[in-house]
This record gives sequence, structure tokens and C-alpha cells, in this order.
Amino acid sequence: MHRKAVVLLSGGLDSATVLAIAKDQGYECYALSFDYGQRHKLELAAAVQVAKSLHALSHRTLQVDLRQIGGSALTDSQIEVPQTTGSGIPVTYVPARNIIFMSLALAYAETIEAFDLFIGVNAIDYSGYPDCRPEFIQAFAQMANLGTKAGVEGRTFAIHTPLISMSKADIIKRGKQLGVDFAVTLSCYQPDSTGNSCGVCDSCRLRQQGFSEAGLKDPTRYR
Amino acid sequence: MHRKAVVLLSGGLDSATVLAIAKDQGYECYALSFDYGQRHKLELAAAVQVAKSLHALSHRTLQVDLRQIGGSALTDSQIEVPQTTGSGIPVTYVPARNIIFMSLALAYAETIEAFDLFIGVNAIDYSGYPDCRPEFIQAFAQMANLGTKAGVEGRTFAIHTPLISMSKADIIKRGKQLGVDFAVTLSCYQPDSTGNSCGVCDSCRLRQQGFSEAGLKDPTRYR
Repeated sequence: MHRKAVVLLSGGLDSATVLAIAKDQGYECYALSFDYGQRHKLELAAAVQVAKSLHALSHRTLQVDLRQIGGSALTDSQIEVPQTTGSGIPVTYVPARNIIFMSLALAYAETIEAFDLFIGVNAIDYSGYPDCRPEFIQAFAQMANLGTKAGVEGRTFAIHTPLISMSKADIIKRGKQLGVDFAVTLSCYQPDSTGNSCGVCDSCRLRQQGFSEAGLKDPTRYR
Repeated sequence: MHRKAVVLLSGGLDSATVLAIAKDQGYECYALSFDYGQRHKLELAAAVQVAKSLHALSHRTLQVDLRQIGGSALTDSQIEVPQTTGSGIPVTYVPARNIIFMSLALAYAETIEAFDLFIGVNAIDYSGYPDCRPEFIQAFAQMANLGTKAGVEGRTFAIHTPLISMSKADIIKRGKQLGVDFAVTLSCYQPDSTGNSCGVCDSCRLRQQGFSEAGLKDPTRYR
């Protein structure tokens, strides 16, 4: 029997590659996305396409409206998305976002009896988010195993972060190898209504640089 | 200037006592409740009354529908609430509920720059939930300080659990001392439509026993 895994899927290229990796490792993949009140729903549509193209066993989108909390350029339309990379943690940081998503993923995993969670955090070409660091992931796993019924009953949740020490270029090369169709992924924080990426936000620039360093053609439509 | 605290408020007597304790310690209290798709909304109405009667500075109810995930008698109407206390972790356990609530509270705290979180977990007269144990709380705090911007920038989140080693009777006595009006709190898992408690679920029985051991009159209306 295949082991079940819950895979967090954002619609971006990192999580698409993670899904491909989890599949390649032989897991039955339950993909999970979050409709959290992000600026645009195009990334959710991209996640649907990614799950379908990589043949995830199932794909669910959970509603958790982080606009109720605010505090980020990604969930508060009053705060502008910056077009230059500054120093420190950027305004696109969403307070505790990965913590919230991973907690919901954990609840879902416990419910379907999956003990492997995959998340595409990356400590190299990231935007300076604290919840992408290995020491955080390790602390989350420890907390999860102490705070759940499954954990107490001796089942151990493992948080897999296969991209954590990969460069964006390496992620792209690995994804390509595993058959990820990057044309259906979307990285931009502020695409236009037809899905064209801006090419200037942090996320677009990391993506462009990654394809360039990987020596591969970026299939993204930029406006 | 007063320090801000986020206080998780369920409408039950434990969290009401926690709010009174946080107030008594001089915190500006931002009470937070969760509309998570629980069987009845009466506990949310009780939380509003509790916040008002104890003069919380603010009270917000966040929506996070855990019925999307299921897996518990409290969020899935297909699973019956038991009327006897069994051994082990009961069907009223909601997968990762406290983890999810504390994660959202953490995001809210980070947004309003509160670094103290209060939660009424209790490791004595509890129902056997793993996410009420001190080792879990400690692991959560560690994870929170590694996974947030505030934590990384050197602010430390503290998770206060003033009830953790108190008996239900002691909690009731302490609440009474601090002026908690227990008549507005609601413990029952399945009150009727007029707010009368069942008197037979785990939660009702712990409450009744607590009042009895405290030598105080339980003002709850039982049907």
C-alpha cells in the first residue's frame, strides 16, 4: 500500500516541484491549497492545474481568510507590493502564514491518517521569511507530535522540505526532470486579470533569475 | 503603558477565568474567539457576554471553518457526542484545534504587536486532549519564536497558561474571587436552543463536579 502524504500547493513553481518529488518518492498525494484572501485567485486556479497535471490523488482548497487579521501587503490592499528587494523581512510577509497553513494541513493529515507533510519552503532563494528556515520546520514538527492525538499515540508526523537547501535554479532543473509543466505555475504577486505576470515583484524576479541560472526558457507570460 | 495580551476566549468558564487573570495582571486584553463550525453558536454568544462583563479592551471572532476538515464529534454532525467518559482521547477531540487557534492568535498578536498570549488549557481536569499539556505549550512557544518576524527580530512571544495545573474547583474559586460571572459562561457541548445545558456530556460533568468540590452554587441552567 502506498503511504499518504499531504502536499501544500500554492500554484507556484516550488510547490509544484515538491508535489512531483513526493509522487516520485511513491506517496499517494493529497494536495492542499489555501484561499486565504490573497490579492488574486489566479494562483488557486494555477494550483488546480498543477494538481491535475501531476496527477495528485486529490486536491482541496481550504478557506481561511487572513484578511480578518491583516498586517501584510499580500492580504491588505492598503499596503503596496514593493518593486525592489529591500533588506530585512518584506511587507509581503504574512504574520504566521506558514504556521497557520501547516496547522491546517496537520489537522487534515491527522483526519485522513497521513503522517507525511510536504511543503516547499526554501532557505536559500527565499524572500527573508522566518517561517522558511529549517530550525522553524524542526520546531513545528516537534510541536505537532506533542499536540496531536496521533503524535501522542505514537505515530510520528514528518515534515518534508525537499527544497530547503536548493537554489531556485536547482529547483527548476529538478522540476523539469520530473515533468513539471512550469507554464501552468504562477509566481507573481500581482498578475493582471489574464494571468500575465508583472516581472518586477520579488517573486517574479527570483523566478526569472532561477530560469536564467538553470539555462532553461521561462515559459511565463510577462506583461 | 499597559502591555497588550491576546486572550483566547471560548465562552466557557476556564477561558473566562483566564481573561479575569490577565486583566488582574494589568494587561490590555484583546479577546479572540473562533467560529469554527462548532455544533452550536451559543458558546460564541457566551464569549461576547464574557468579554463585555470582564471589560476586555476588544473582542473579535475569527471565522475558520473546521468542518472543511472534519474528524470530530464537535465539527461533524455524523459523529455523536458521547454521554459517558471513556478512556483515551475522546471523539470530541478536534484534530489540531488548539494548534490552529493558537496559530491564528499568534498571527493576530504579531499584527497588533502583542507578545503575550493567554490560553485556558488545563492538564488536570481536562478531557485527555494532547494539546492541553505543558510540553505541547512549550513546544508551541518555541516554534512561534522561530517562525515569526517578531520572534526573529528579538521579541519573544510568551504563552501564558495560568490554569494549567489547577483543578476545576480551584479555577472556579479563582474566577469567583476575580468577579467572573459564571452565569454567562457556557460549558455544554450540546445545549438546547434556549441555552440550557445537557448535564450529561463530559464538559457538563466536569463543570458540575468542579462547582461541587469548590463548595459553590453552579448558576448553570440545566434542562
